[in-house]
Amino acid sequence: MTFMLDNRDTDTRCRIVAQAEAFFRQIGYTKTTVADIAKALKMSPANVYRFFDSKKAINEAVAEVMMRGVEEAAEAIAASQASPPEKVRRFVETVSRMNAERYVEDRRMHEMVEAALDESWSIVEAHLERLHAILTRIIGEGMARGDFDVGDAAVAAGCVQAGMLKFCHPRHIMDCQGMAFGAQMDGMIQFMLRGLGWRGR
Amino acid sequence: MTFMLDNRDTDTRCRIVAQAEAFFRQIGYTKTTVADIAKALKMSPANVYRFFDSKKAINEAVAEVMMRGVEEAAEAIAASQASPPEKVRRFVETVSRMNAERYVEDRRMHEMVEAALDESWSIVEAHLERLHAILTRIIGEGMARGDFDVGDAAVAAGCVQAGMLKFCHPRHIMDCQGMAFGAQMDGMIQFMLRGLGWRGR
Repeated sequence: MTFMLDNRDTDTRCRIVAQAEAFFRQIGYTKTTVADIAKALKMSPANVYRFFDSKKAINEAVAEVMMRGVEEAAEAIAASQASPPEKVRRFVETVSRMNAERYVEDRRMHEMVEAALDESWSIVEAHLERLHAILTRIIGEGMARGDFDVGDAAVAAGCVQAGMLKFCHPRHIMDCQGMAFGAQMDGMIQFMLRGLGWRGR
Repeated sequence: MTFMLDNRDTDTRCRIVAQAEAFFRQIGYTKTTVADIAKALKMSPANVYRFFDSKKAINEAVAEVMMRGVEEAAEAIAASQASPPEKVRRFVETVSRMNAERYVEDRRMHEMVEAALDESWSIVEAHLERLHAILTRIIGEGMARGDFDVGDAAVAAGCVQAGMLKFCHPRHIMDCQGMAFGAQMDGMIQFMLRGLGWRGR
């Protein structure tokens, strides 16, 4: 959007996103219509379209709010007093747990995720890039303290992010439930800390 | 199937699978019908159904043939004279390259993969389990030679398999094409070899 939003507009935008999220949870992304959202907010569909030009745009706004929540938790870990290896551990565990709660355990929300993965890859990529930046800072801190021994914090952060996929990507969390073999998260975190050159346990 | 197949039946089965694969490549999984396959082989649809009770079953047979090819390449690496760290490297590179060729570069084949991932997870899981067994043997060999220092070869193999996802899973190979950040395969292999306790380069 290129025009400025005043406070009332910002408020309306937030209400639309909150209402959309509520419907996505109750009846699912597919069945929710812009008309439903407008009606629940006692406004015209045209007014909703003033803020979002499509249901896809509303979905992206809902997904961004949820992803921002995960990023804030990751930021809090990075800013905490824990040691860098402990921060890496908590980062992986927290993103995994929050993604499972948000996108997998709530079956109806999974529809929203599938739509975002298929139609709005750029917002998913931007989220991954923000998480990558946080993880790069954590690893850089560990290098400075001598906990980690890697050539490049950003490259190493990319490796940890790739290693988290199975535990953090909504589709894998779904697919891998109940698989009898394969990595468990604890073992994977140990494996990755070792990949970062950490000698502790 | 619980009844025995004689040689002629085995041959017919193979011809159905080969014809199905040809159609999947030419016109895609979705548009291919059992009637098309039967017609091309100059047999009745009923005869096709004698071997496969659904198009899904045919798709699974096609997918299994393709996955077996990857497993055979992985077995050849395990049986080769290379050092265990080099085997791990080749294993990851080969599975990544073969999956990209088979399931991603050929857009039409990707339809088959999506169908298999959605509807036939058990055959995908069996494939992953066979690759896991091969990788466990390679890592066990490296432990015996002192190249790797891990507690349990099977657990470590699960970690390497999780770390390969981004480069080997058809959906990730698709999604991650052209991503500006994140791990490159070479860096990830180094990271994982280090996770295995390898001290060389």
